[in-house]
Amino acid sequence: MCKVALLGFGTVGSSVAKIICEREDMGLRLTHVCNRNVARKKVDWLPSSVIWTENIDDVIASECDVVVEVMGGLQPTEEWIRRALAAGKSVVTANKQIIARSGPELIALAQEMKQQIEFGASVAGGVPVISGLHEGLAGDKLFKICGILNGTCNYILSQIESNGVSFASALGEAQKLGFAEANPTEDIDGLDARAKLAILVRVGLDCYVTPASIVARSISPIDAIDFEYAKLLNCTIRQISLAELDGDRLLAAVQPALVQLNSPLARVEGSQNLVMATGIYGGETVFGGHGAGGHPTAVAVVSDILAIARAKQAGHRRAARVAEKTLAVSADFKTKHYLRFMVNDRPGIIASLSAILSKCEINIDSVLQKPASPKSHLSFLISLEECEASLVEQALEQINALDFMVDPCLHMPIL
Amino acid sequence: MCKVALLGFGTVGSSVAKIICEREDMGLRLTHVCNRNVARKKVDWLPSSVIWTENIDDVIASECDVVVEVMGGLQPTEEWIRRALAAGKSVVTANKQIIARSGPELIALAQEMKQQIEFGASVAGGVPVISGLHEGLAGDKLFKICGILNGTCNYILSQIESNGVSFASALGEAQKLGFAEANPTEDIDGLDARAKLAILVRVGLDCYVTPASIVARSISPIDAIDFEYAKLLNCTIRQISLAELDGDRLLAAVQPALVQLNSPLARVEGSQNLVMATGIYGGETVFGGHGAGGHPTAVAVVSDILAIARAKQAGHRRAARVAEKTLAVSADFKTKHYLRFMVNDRPGIIASLSAILSKCEINIDSVLQKPASPKSHLSFLISLEECEASLVEQALEQINALDFMVDPCLHMPIL
Repeated sequence: MCKVALLGFGTVGSSVAKIICEREDMGLRLTHVCNRNVARKKVDWLPSSVIWTENIDDVIASECDVVVEVMGGLQPTEEWIRRALAAGKSVVTANKQIIARSGPELIALAQEMKQQIEFGASVAGGVPVISGLHEGLAGDKLFKICGILNGTCNYILSQIESNGVSFASALGEAQKLGFAEANPTEDIDGLDARAKLAILVRVGLDCYVTPASIVARSISPIDAIDFEYAKLLNCTIRQISLAELDGDRLLAAVQPALVQLNSPLARVEGSQNLVMATGIYGGETVFGGHGAGGHPTAVAVVSDILAIARAKQAGHRRAARVAEKTLAVSADFKTKHYLRFMVNDRPGIIASLSAILSKCEINIDSVLQKPASPKSHLSFLISLEECEASLVEQALEQINALDFMVDPCLHMPIL
Repeated sequence: MCKVALLGFGTVGSSVAKIICEREDMGLRLTHVCNRNVARKKVDWLPSSVIWTENIDDVIASECDVVVEVMGGLQPTEEWIRRALAAGKSVVTANKQIIARSGPELIALAQEMKQQIEFGASVAGGVPVISGLHEGLAGDKLFKICGILNGTCNYILSQIESNGVSFASALGEAQKLGFAEANPTEDIDGLDARAKLAILVRVGLDCYVTPASIVARSISPIDAIDFEYAKLLNCTIRQISLAELDGDRLLAAVQPALVQLNSPLARVEGSQNLVMATGIYGGETVFGGHGAGGHPTAVAVVSDILAIARAKQAGHRRAARVAEKTLAVSADFKTKHYLRFMVNDRPGIIASLSAILSKCEINIDSVLQKPASPKSHLSFLISLEECEASLVEQALEQINALDFMVDPCLHMPIL
């Protein structure tokens, strides 16, 4: 019997408790629930043997084998994880920010204490992508990871796409339905997804990067008109987390991007998550499913507890793969590009733009304009042939200074 | 260093050897290659230390740790696997037929010998679905597995769909391109897929079934006209392997079926594989990728070797989950149904058919007819409301005896 203590009894925590209690055949026993204001949290469906406490010391001093951290936040969470490991307990956490920032140190601490730390739930909720990369595809040499890792962004973009609403209105709707936080910055600016991408890079590409080193661009400038232009290119728009080994550097970014309509990425609807891993031997492998929600995330947590329990029973620890390679990180992907302009119309605009682009040695692929926009806020699209993003950014610096520009040009890669 | 002997040096075997040699960081060493007419097989890119042999006794008597079986076939393959296990070696195999038929015995023998037998490559080639079900989703309670497990069938059906060709011509083309065997029965009649489904049921639903207990229906009656009718229902046609727990029985079948165009199953193209697993907690999780081919299958094989190597290093064995539940197997799914008729036209046909269906208490959902078929070979579609497949089969026994029927009615579930 493997004894489990739970830190945090919110949506995920209570789902973890539910699965442990309902599935007696798994051989897990819940011993503690630790939460603030714990009296308010008590439920009647847990065995009376479970100790409810607000005091982490009760958990640390107990004989539990595994401490499950699903309380979120950075502090005191990280300190509590360290204390649990230092006290000779294994840890399962769903905390992407802590794993992305301090994962290697925590893994080292766990190894020193002959314990394990598992974090399958930290990326893509219930989708078993961490174990898939670490074990299922261990025989390949992966060089590229591409995914939709943030359900909130995908929900908002799907809503703009299918209902033709504005970004602000889609965000408001998502907040009303509980799909987006009151402060949605972490999600829409890509900070949540880049922490997850940093973890996937470490597990799948064996390469250590900090979340802060990954460029993150917001989805907030995307509007309904962009989906119309994207459709003309046989594409749709998704928040894409992409990392690719490129010689001695890592190309990585989280940003809104155009994806082909026939790509699996285009078909990820609502709050679903999807990860595509590409290896030199096996090609593309796809993992998809529910990226968030109490129950799916709890499945990932419980699967990790079971992996630790199985290993403990066999008297060993699951080997942690610690990424040792540190690469320079760049967002300078070479792709086709989507430039959407909003201008105050007058003669000579295309001539000015094409002169700047041509001076930067950038080739125009197409110029497309949807009818019926007012002259003072005229939108049109220029798509560019394949070139480095940095080249486009250089050109845009000059372009955005032009007097006919109403808004800065919206620039996205076309994948 | 984990020492590996290879039985079989065909497409998969040589890919396994290639990965082991190229990826020195994995800590695997190839010691033997065993194959018939081995002189003909010798390559110059393997280290000179590798022993080439036609004699299995050389492998059994050697000090190798893991025997990799990628020679295929049933005999002498199964006997060689048993001999390797009995000699205290772990085994990795890609052999679905042997695992589907004798998996439990082989796992028991491995346990007795304190060894492991791994078979991740036996289902869906490079897609890590066995480890995904066994470990990544261990915390869920799965009740349904649905997949596209045979690349040959999917290729043939995709070809009929996109080029409007006949089944015979699509099969011929697939044979010419090497996507189908000279004798394609195993694939098109569903025998290959049902062996894989039996393995997935064992690993994912914890339930022991023999391949022979699973109904398999051929895709050979499918023709271009069926894709046209399917499209009218917003569907396409795929060979679907489906198993679902239903109280104290297991519903399972491998058959051509209509799937909604917006389902992930509909978007599996060419020889790709896809598995959807559904659990009571985590909902639907999808695994997709290359289901066949030397390199992808070799990735699955090498991942299994690495799992054994890691476990050996830690001084334990990966726990095998042995399915103990034996359930009655039925193909009596309750779904909507597609009935495609080919008749010699005369008045009163719909009246006769609807009389029989109504007597069997089956409700008609729609009757659709594509224009322009000759009166002597007139095709039309009747779709039925949800009911058990057995009920439809009863009605079809009477219907197929009617004098205006040119061919037996083609019956498929609509999923």
